[in-house]
Amino acid sequence: MTPRVAFQGERGAYSEAASRVLAPQAEPTPCRLLGDVFDGVTAGRADLGVVPIENSQAGSINETYDLLLAHALHITGEHDQRIRHCLLALPGRPLERLRRVFSHPQALAQCDAFLRAHRLEGVPAYDTAGSAKLIAEQHLTDAGAIAGAHAGEIYGLAVLAEGIETNPANYTKFLAVARDPAPHHHPAKTSVVFTTANVPGALYRVLGALASRSINMTKLESRPGRTVPWEYVFYADMEGHADDPVVAAALAEVGGLCTFLRILGSYPRVMPPG
Amino acid sequence: MTPRVAFQGERGAYSEAASRVLAPQAEPTPCRLLGDVFDGVTAGRADLGVVPIENSQAGSINETYDLLLAHALHITGEHDQRIRHCLLALPGRPLERLRRVFSHPQALAQCDAFLRAHRLEGVPAYDTAGSAKLIAEQHLTDAGAIAGAHAGEIYGLAVLAEGIETNPANYTKFLAVARDPAPHHHPAKTSVVFTTANVPGALYRVLGALASRSINMTKLESRPGRTVPWEYVFYADMEGHADDPVVAAALAEVGGLCTFLRILGSYPRVMPPG
Repeated sequence: MTPRVAFQGERGAYSEAASRVLAPQAEPTPCRLLGDVFDGVTAGRADLGVVPIENSQAGSINETYDLLLAHALHITGEHDQRIRHCLLALPGRPLERLRRVFSHPQALAQCDAFLRAHRLEGVPAYDTAGSAKLIAEQHLTDAGAIAGAHAGEIYGLAVLAEGIETNPANYTKFLAVARDPAPHHHPAKTSVVFTTANVPGALYRVLGALASRSINMTKLESRPGRTVPWEYVFYADMEGHADDPVVAAALAEVGGLCTFLRILGSYPRVMPPG
Repeated sequence: MTPRVAFQGERGAYSEAASRVLAPQAEPTPCRLLGDVFDGVTAGRADLGVVPIENSQAGSINETYDLLLAHALHITGEHDQRIRHCLLALPGRPLERLRRVFSHPQALAQCDAFLRAHRLEGVPAYDTAGSAKLIAEQHLTDAGAIAGAHAGEIYGLAVLAEGIETNPANYTKFLAVARDPAPHHHPAKTSVVFTTANVPGALYRVLGALASRSINMTKLESRPGRTVPWEYVFYADMEGHADDPVVAAALAEVGGLCTFLRILGSYPRVMPPG
């Protein structure tokens, strides 16, 4: 049976494009909410979930971190998806005949200079791929949509312009999550979440457990805890696999220094874009 | 002359509500883009800017961090603004007569359970306050808007329901930025940005400069640098004023360990929301 990969959004969303990279053999299955992706994988309705964790312009996606903590899934992979916005329209409609362009407000803002240069009116919509679907389904001849090229293919729209975002350094990091850990892989990366009491030096000692073993941390982010006041939750990525003896020893030491530690997963490491 | 405080968004936006807390004597002045707020303060068209830096659900707002780095302004204050969504409509229109509700897609998603329970159709719009303005200006009798209570007052709409978001722990942290540093204040908080080479232990040594002096860090976040590959940019908040001798000594040591260090500002510390 073909495995299924759950993603949040409409068919043609950037998260579907990421799903095709992270799980090329699987059938992408759209979900309405991000929580539906986690629930679907947990319940076995999908074999894998693909969820956004960080956008280079908008920042970390806290909802995904909360869902990772609330579910017992493992991170099994990561992919940096370039967000390259296209202007899509019905085939045969030239740019000069368009008046309105539908998309998510964030995408409209990212393409503000292009829209102004072509005197196009931005119309807010729920999401990028949904805007492409709207143009196709309602056969809107005076309107375009801002979405990925992939959405154009799915809904049979033509690409009138590509890479129309003002700042091209626009990436979203997606994670794959599954019920079982990824097979051992080298080079690997490990994601953990831990909490420390808010005393000076608590985090310093945790980082010491990594630094003294020359383990490279590739991400560190703190958030105030929601349950215990003055306690902090840290999300960290480090190079190496949690089963590597050196990493395992470091994590054992970290566990002794923290009020809480969970290994979210070890998975193949990919190089950051650009 | 009345001082002016610039904020991004329509009149009645949550950022205007935050502006009234951070600068009660000033005249709030709406700006179209976040960059316009920074440009306006830099050029002297406004005395203060109020900008969102982090939302408890959506995470850090990287665009604001980028703008802080690109401008020579000082952080002079912070405020945690509760995001409490209201259903607004023309006065005299009962909830049962509404069919559609306009708002930003994120606000619609946050109030999804309420909308479903009342069989209301969500309609995406550019922003929350702009939706309230639309209802009032176009005198839409079958439509409501999701926005803050403050937007209702400004556009003469009635509040049909308050606190309709599914998760009430919804706060946005706003910063005040100005051309001059804030007057000395106790207790204070200091925000800095620094870069380290991506070698194991670089961050560890930086945190050691704080920990060895019992300086409490209240936030730490890393982002990959955009210019030099494998270099990391860290944003950190700590307790204390940059002029306090202990903090000043720590920052001098940090400066020697980093490839770049900038003090974004020292300002009055407020307690995080319960």
